[in-house]
Amino acid sequence: MIQIFGLPKMPLVKAGDRIGDQLVRAAKDASIRIEDGDIIVVAQKIVSKAEGNVVTLNSVEPSALAKTVAIGACKDPRHVEIILREAAGILRMQGAHLIVETRHGFVCANAGVDKSNVGANDSVALLPVNPDESARAIRERVHELTGIDVGVIISDTFGRAWRNGQTNVAIGVAGLDPIMDYRGTQDMFGAQLNVTQIAIADELASAAELVMRKRDGVPVVIIRGVKYVRAPGSVRSLIRPKEEDLFR
Amino acid sequence: MIQIFGLPKMPLVKAGDRIGDQLVRAAKDASIRIEDGDIIVVAQKIVSKAEGNVVTLNSVEPSALAKTVAIGACKDPRHVEIILREAAGILRMQGAHLIVETRHGFVCANAGVDKSNVGANDSVALLPVNPDESARAIRERVHELTGIDVGVIISDTFGRAWRNGQTNVAIGVAGLDPIMDYRGTQDMFGAQLNVTQIAIADELASAAELVMRKRDGVPVVIIRGVKYVRAPGSVRSLIRPKEEDLFR
Repeated sequence: MIQIFGLPKMPLVKAGDRIGDQLVRAAKDASIRIEDGDIIVVAQKIVSKAEGNVVTLNSVEPSALAKTVAIGACKDPRHVEIILREAAGILRMQGAHLIVETRHGFVCANAGVDKSNVGANDSVALLPVNPDESARAIRERVHELTGIDVGVIISDTFGRAWRNGQTNVAIGVAGLDPIMDYRGTQDMFGAQLNVTQIAIADELASAAELVMRKRDGVPVVIIRGVKYVRAPGSVRSLIRPKEEDLFR
Repeated sequence: MIQIFGLPKMPLVKAGDRIGDQLVRAAKDASIRIEDGDIIVVAQKIVSKAEGNVVTLNSVEPSALAKTVAIGACKDPRHVEIILREAAGILRMQGAHLIVETRHGFVCANAGVDKSNVGANDSVALLPVNPDESARAIRERVHELTGIDVGVIISDTFGRAWRNGQTNVAIGVAGLDPIMDYRGTQDMFGAQLNVTQIAIADELASAAELVMRKRDGVPVVIIRGVKYVRAPGSVRSLIRPKEEDLFR
């Protein structure tokens, strides 16, 4: 059986906070024992805030391009300026939609730059500079404080091609292989499996969202009882190289 | 807390079986009580088998087009013929990749036509003709037999644009709104939420996959403790209309 539960007592995170310390304390306060093999899913927003990766709109001077795009997209030109700075490439710019490739290689709307749950009206949060490193730091801190070996996923909410609605996906990974590889294995009846690589880190992020919920302020979720392959892990395994992608 | 567990005693499904009867019996045999509000996720493969939606390759005469495509894709031309018959449109045909829109409106590889876990070497399973209706029938049968109100999701494993690996998504829905709609609501700090519509049926399908696993033969999974909106529901809510899709 798999169990998924939120940490109810996480404090509001501010710049300079260490998420690893806070979540271990929150677990303790809630009498929750972190266990070997637990997957801890952490919402991107609190990681960005802890790392100080928040920008005040007033500090931004929008370029001519940002001003032009902002008119079409009905966005604040300063917000657009930050999105363009975070983008390594633009896939679609149409109406209010600005689908870009981020410097990390993620394809998402607005480069993940987001006003909600930042806590200041004139500020936006950027994605963490190196989300794998953020995940690794949390994982190591949990191990230092508790001696327990966990997997850590930093998650964010992305839209998809072809399907309505957004889902949580992994943007940083530590302590697990984000892909479960079935290549060369057989199905129940001895035939070669057609489905070969399952993106379990994304499935774990999605499962965590069912507890996180956007409005409820549950930014840290523990998933217990999942079989996974322990490995250093990196979200890079989940990013399809441009040259192999049929939809760029 | 959310709990996810498989039904361990599901029999091998064959044409004409009623999944609703089988899963209620399997739950009983395993001393599992189905509870009000449970989400039951059923793998597409057993639904297709129960509905007799399996085609023997020997019964298929490939067209000239199927033969040509099969050479490029290194596939059996009869398999390609079935894929083309299931397709309402073709998005990409490149190397071994055949990404199509199915008659239902799903965008996926090979129109969901799949050899694995069918149990006969020369046969392939197609997607259910009307997966919402399949879900509804299971939901109603569970209610008839137990008096319990559940949500039902038929799931399949699809690839995505931009990201490696496949994840489970919903292809049929009954008893829940597949989208959790946050439009017009506020974040923790009173600001408008940026993320507005969460595809919880897809997240539930992904969460179920963590228990299903391809090789393990766990085609029915129960998810307990999820807050969702009860509604007749339809997977159509998850299908982005072509004219609104930036990636066709």
